[in-house]
Amino acid sequence: MFSIQQISDRLLEKDIKPSFQRIKIYDFLLKNNIHPNIEMIYNNLTKDIPTLSKTTIYNTLKNFEEKGLIISVNIDEKEIRYDARLITHGHFKCVKCGEIYDFDYNHDKLKIKGLPDFEIKKTDLNIKGVCPKCK
Amino acid sequence: MFSIQQISDRLLEKDIKPSFQRIKIYDFLLKNNIHPNIEMIYNNLTKDIPTLSKTTIYNTLKNFEEKGLIISVNIDEKEIRYDARLITHGHFKCVKCGEIYDFDYNHDKLKIKGLPDFEIKKTDLNIKGVCPKCK
Repeated sequence: MFSIQQISDRLLEKDIKPSFQRIKIYDFLLKNNIHPNIEMIYNNLTKDIPTLSKTTIYNTLKNFEEKGLIISVNIDEKEIRYDARLITHGHFKCVKCGEIYDFDYNHDKLKIKGLPDFEIKKTDLNIKGVCPKCK
Repeated sequence: MFSIQQISDRLLEKDIKPSFQRIKIYDFLLKNNIHPNIEMIYNNLTKDIPTLSKTTIYNTLKNFEEKGLIISVNIDEKEIRYDARLITHGHFKCVKCGEIYDFDYNHDKLKIKGLPDFEIKKTDLNIKGVCPKCK
């Protein structure tokens, strides 16, 4: 999907030094659209990078988010999940299996009323329910 | 707004025993549309009910939510806020002062694509940004 060089360039564009760990974390997010939490990233990358800690992953993701490289998905009070797909889309979380699915929606038709002088930074459309596999 | 009798009846409708503490907690949520967290409810009610604990508030709110009496607002990973207003509306959280504002939006026009056989239980539209007071 993306070469190491492309990922490295993308990090540099956002003023992030492309260290090996940062490249691997961003690469994982780009390749795996599973909206992973820190635990999932750790479990997948620790074989390749035995020195990786959860604190490093947390700080890296926080930095990525601040620079607008990824978004955090706060669909559940119990955990934060991360997503490298930046095109506007919603998230559906299955309350039974915990899987998170992307869906598209018509953002322009939201017709938000009551926020005339508010500066909008981030819009999240989150749905909880039961996925077809768990029904 | 609502009498103690009306609140008590509403709890009974939802199979919740209308204890004094439960009535006071629901009454507070109905009267104060500030989307309080557990801390805020505790600080406001502890003068009237010195025996009230945060655990009781937590358990009461969890029960209220399960019975469909209130909703939890997961707009931020750091805390859960609660809302007794059940008509579909979105939440705006100011990243500077932390205040949560309600807004209306056209839920029917969302045109969600990609969730054909999914059972939808709860939809949250959350916006983060800066409110006019903090701009």
